[in-house]
Amino acid sequence: GMNPDLASERQTASFSVEKLTAWLDGGAEHTRIRRAVVEAIECDPVFSRENQYFQSQNERYEAAVRKAVHLQKKMHEMGWTEDGPEFKYIYRALSGDIAFLLHRIFMRSISVLGSKQQTAKWIPLATQYQLIGSYAQTELGHGTYLQGLETTAVFDITTQEFILNTPKISAMKWWPGDMGRSATHTVVFAQLYVHGKCYGVHPFIVQIRSLQDHSLCPGITAGDIGPKMNFEHVDNGYLMLQNVRVPRENMLNKFCEVQPDGTYARWGSQKINYFTMTTVRISLISDEAVIPLMKACTIAIRYSVVRRQSKLKPGEQEAKILDYQTQQEKLLPQLAAAYAFHFISNYLQELFDKVYREIQRKMFDTLPELHAFSSGFKAMVTQYCTSAVAICLQACGGHGYSLLSGLPSLYTKIVASCIYEGENTILLLQTARFLIKCFMAASTGQPVPPSVTYLAAVKPGKCPAKNKLDFLSPDVYTEAYQHMAARLISSTAAKLQDLIQSGVKKTDAWNQCTVQLVQAAKAHCHYITVKNFAETVEKLETKAGIQKIMKHLCDLFALHGIFSNGGVFLHDGYVSGAQMDMVTASYLDLLAVIRKDAVPLVDAFDFTDKSLNSALGSYDGQVYQRLYEWAQKSPTNKQMSPAYERYLKPLLHNTLSKL
Amino acid sequence: GMNPDLASERQTASFSVEKLTAWLDGGAEHTRIRRAVVEAIECDPVFSRENQYFQSQNERYEAAVRKAVHLQKKMHEMGWTEDGPEFKYIYRALSGDIAFLLHRIFMRSISVLGSKQQTAKWIPLATQYQLIGSYAQTELGHGTYLQGLETTAVFDITTQEFILNTPKISAMKWWPGDMGRSATHTVVFAQLYVHGKCYGVHPFIVQIRSLQDHSLCPGITAGDIGPKMNFEHVDNGYLMLQNVRVPRENMLNKFCEVQPDGTYARWGSQKINYFTMTTVRISLISDEAVIPLMKACTIAIRYSVVRRQSKLKPGEQEAKILDYQTQQEKLLPQLAAAYAFHFISNYLQELFDKVYREIQRKMFDTLPELHAFSSGFKAMVTQYCTSAVAICLQACGGHGYSLLSGLPSLYTKIVASCIYEGENTILLLQTARFLIKCFMAASTGQPVPPSVTYLAAVKPGKCPAKNKLDFLSPDVYTEAYQHMAARLISSTAAKLQDLIQSGVKKTDAWNQCTVQLVQAAKAHCHYITVKNFAETVEKLETKAGIQKIMKHLCDLFALHGIFSNGGVFLHDGYVSGAQMDMVTASYLDLLAVIRKDAVPLVDAFDFTDKSLNSALGSYDGQVYQRLYEWAQKSPTNKQMSPAYERYLKPLLHNTLSKL
Repeated sequence: GMNPDLASERQTASFSVEKLTAWLDGGAEHTRIRRAVVEAIECDPVFSRENQYFQSQNERYEAAVRKAVHLQKKMHEMGWTEDGPEFKYIYRALSGDIAFLLHRIFMRSISVLGSKQQTAKWIPLATQYQLIGSYAQTELGHGTYLQGLETTAVFDITTQEFILNTPKISAMKWWPGDMGRSATHTVVFAQLYVHGKCYGVHPFIVQIRSLQDHSLCPGITAGDIGPKMNFEHVDNGYLMLQNVRVPRENMLNKFCEVQPDGTYARWGSQKINYFTMTTVRISLISDEAVIPLMKACTIAIRYSVVRRQSKLKPGEQEAKILDYQTQQEKLLPQLAAAYAFHFISNYLQELFDKVYREIQRKMFDTLPELHAFSSGFKAMVTQYCTSAVAICLQACGGHGYSLLSGLPSLYTKIVASCIYEGENTILLLQTARFLIKCFMAASTGQPVPPSVTYLAAVKPGKCPAKNKLDFLSPDVYTEAYQHMAARLISSTAAKLQDLIQSGVKKTDAWNQCTVQLVQAAKAHCHYITVKNFAETVEKLETKAGIQKIMKHLCDLFALHGIFSNGGVFLHDGYVSGAQMDMVTASYLDLLAVIRKDAVPLVDAFDFTDKSLNSALGSYDGQVYQRLYEWAQKSPTNKQMSPAYERYLKPLLHNTLSKL
Repeated sequence: GMNPDLASERQTASFSVEKLTAWLDGGAEHTRIRRAVVEAIECDPVFSRENQYFQSQNERYEAAVRKAVHLQKKMHEMGWTEDGPEFKYIYRALSGDIAFLLHRIFMRSISVLGSKQQTAKWIPLATQYQLIGSYAQTELGHGTYLQGLETTAVFDITTQEFILNTPKISAMKWWPGDMGRSATHTVVFAQLYVHGKCYGVHPFIVQIRSLQDHSLCPGITAGDIGPKMNFEHVDNGYLMLQNVRVPRENMLNKFCEVQPDGTYARWGSQKINYFTMTTVRISLISDEAVIPLMKACTIAIRYSVVRRQSKLKPGEQEAKILDYQTQQEKLLPQLAAAYAFHFISNYLQELFDKVYREIQRKMFDTLPELHAFSSGFKAMVTQYCTSAVAICLQACGGHGYSLLSGLPSLYTKIVASCIYEGENTILLLQTARFLIKCFMAASTGQPVPPSVTYLAAVKPGKCPAKNKLDFLSPDVYTEAYQHMAARLISSTAAKLQDLIQSGVKKTDAWNQCTVQLVQAAKAHCHYITVKNFAETVEKLETKAGIQKIMKHLCDLFALHGIFSNGGVFLHDGYVSGAQMDMVTASYLDLLAVIRKDAVPLVDAFDFTDKSLNSALGSYDGQVYQRLYEWAQKSPTNKQMSPAYERYLKPLLHNTLSKL
């Protein structure tokens, strides 16, 4: 049965959930395809995540391998192809619990960096899983700073081979997925030496395990790096190389080559490499940050209308916890953020498509902008969503802390997104570098990309709002964000200039500004997110039923940001203290408005119960029943613990006489 | 060997680490005792946590039971008693990984709520572990709001028994520790009914498992609630009661009783019950929040001087990551907070001791203040420390995400402290209620406790600082915090009054102010923390070597708070934009100053390698070697996964011909 408290929330929706879902998917046709994929995956028992919360690291790895192998069959069966419209929904439907994602990176790196011959040789084998690939870049001692990698590959002209070595422990490859237990091959990034000269980091295809019995190849030491906060299904591995020889042909040589006589030749543009990184960052924003946050909001909001606790008014029934202002203030801004970031993810995808079309016409001008934005938004969105999921978890009290709520695993997984594919602080500093450059260019009248032209017009001013309703005007708050971002960028640029002019070395000056540079980069991304949300709502004019609630969410996202970061808006008096009180009043009013539609707003994300895998978040709201049923399946309830016989029985056995 | 980068950090300490440790411990004698306890625990293999990160929930539970049973023997052996000076260090030395903490609460509740006869009967049995107790308060449907509990206990006059029942699923007891698998008895909180009349929640001793074979007693359904984000060593349990009968004597009856004829009698003050809750909250601040944060800082800061990444200046060696301003800004404020909260924990302990002495003289006047403060500080400190540990984890990049770093388990454990012993938002609202009351009293000239007299003197004003050095004056920043806290409390009180005067019902008005009330309560606690830190530093005058660095930390804690919460200081113009720039400048300067002493400052916490249980945080800094050695012990490296035979071999077996 349906929990009546949850049911009643759905009867008063101010809009059509189905229409909102279709719009979020980019059209009803996409919704149909997505649902078909989800249905096909979820009805197949191999893909079940039912026991996930009870499994050991070994069991989760095995299940993930099984799923990966089975998926190939399934795709064939269903007629899904990598170019088909279904493909992008498969990963979402699996909730990521699948092996061989690094095998895919292995393939992509060969496609991008390998010659035609290399591609022809390796890709068909990899496609058929006749080898399992991995991607061995990160070392124990080096992550984001690739130039620092210490693995070596020395060219031996007599045998026409590269000799790969791990010269010291910090050079050991560490973290590559699919490498700890699965991979037979991997792309190893190593410093290339020819005739004693170092040519920098290059990729080499190296076999690490026997194709006959999976034993380690000579000179290879490899294994699993052990337990992590999540990702138990992935065999992140280590790899040590001792005089491992690979033929000359195994260096990926689309852009450069060591010729038989030891001559090093390089050609073509490597700019396209940036592009691969950019692709990954843009796609992970949605898959690894926004979707998990949408799930966390769905779970926490549904639970918050089922859970009743304490009384708002004496004599009344206990209140739904979502009726408390403090609970609304925890959850509803996260809900608004999930929408905001969904739209920014679309925005980046469009920007990406545009740049991609240009690149195909050999135009690389917009690549730096795309790179700077994908870096900054990757960092800003993953960080925000990580905090937001933590808030959702804590907002569910004790039950949120049970793995069965689904929230702990969402958190422990999303937190990794702040680190992988570029550590967030480093990424934000890349964005900041781009912004400072644009600011300098703009202030000397040089042309800058359209998204940063606002930097040319930094000027003092005052927010024109006269009352709290004025802060529900997108022009008013977007302008405030723009002013704030521009001020932070320009004042940091000024500090940087001052330091350099006072004789501080450029590199030191940069380091002394990095805290403020990071803040400025975040401010820019926050501004663009607000602006894009407002523009998205505006374009919705024909779908009035949805537009109204989207406008509320946009207002909430914007005002929550001003309320929570008051200092940067008040700093130069652009927003006054009295205006900040108006912001607060409008912000708190909005909570009560959006609260009414909170459940329909998460329903519209259209997650199935299986994909949420949460005792708290199911569509029917049978929270307590499900917690009880699921707990009974725990291995802790399968047998009497040996602890009883060993430790408790000896103590308890002569109590009876005394009671 | 010692990592040279870490060694060099210790040669330039501006103070004596040993002296700082002794001072933090409250004297060298305490340090000696603490170290002796730690030594005795750590040299005993039963207490080893070496395999903790590889263990299943079943294994961790078993180890925790074994430790609890062994501890009794150990204490006897060592001559440690519950009243002795060693006792308070045992839990710290065990790092909390021990069973039967709820057994201790079972005993405490009988001591506090039971009559002399009840105490005489049950306490000796419990002390000898001749029964295992638990404490069954929380239900599936009710946590902090105790009045809402749904379990019933109906008095049957004919048999002189209480009949206990779980009338619906939400009434099932859920979460009690030691109950899922261990307990033979528990204190059940249930609504008492006599002759059809409800007398509210009362405690009953109920046997749930046989003392002969540990099977469940008739009418009892019980088990383990399954996997959680942490606390795998605890068997948090569920309990359903079906017509379970206990004799009349099993209701704890120090304060009230059901007499044989069904007459309900109540006597004595129950105020002392508050006091028990207060004790627990105060002790958990140190044990469950501050110490874990100190550990996280130790791990992250040591790692940040071993880890080198990228170059600050071209041509130089790669830089220690702690030399980057952004890394300093992540970690050093958390270090300062660990010190600040250590001192506030001492402050609360002193306040507690004072109140305790008064209570023994039957004076209860200061109890509300202690209750309000212990609630507010429990909430503020656990929340702050939870965020701080998350920052430490993320600041260690990928390796922080490995369980072997020790950071994930610190996080997943500390996050629970925001929920248990009172959910933080509810606690802050209790503090706020007290503050509003005091504010009202103060503004009408009535007397208020000394800690809140500042509320009487809310007035407009301006911060007198003229340059960035002025912000290193404790008077200047303490005054700013005081002004800010008083303003937030008074403006929220005004909003509340306005709403009520405009006709909004009191309860609705309160709800509409709760977001701001929470903010005001936090502001008050933040102010007291800064003030107490400054006073602690001032009292240190005779120990100049330590005072200087403590002053820096105090300044950092205070200025970080202003920098991060600029809005509330700028709001009414008390701090101007120009002054905020001074704060920022002084704050960033301090990072570079404290960075030099960062390692000695964490060394002074005096954690052994075993207690940190971290591959990143050991004293010798052999980070990479230890990660590698520990990973090899993982069960994932003990055998070839069955996944190979089952799923990979069939795919790979005919690749050979093609390569």
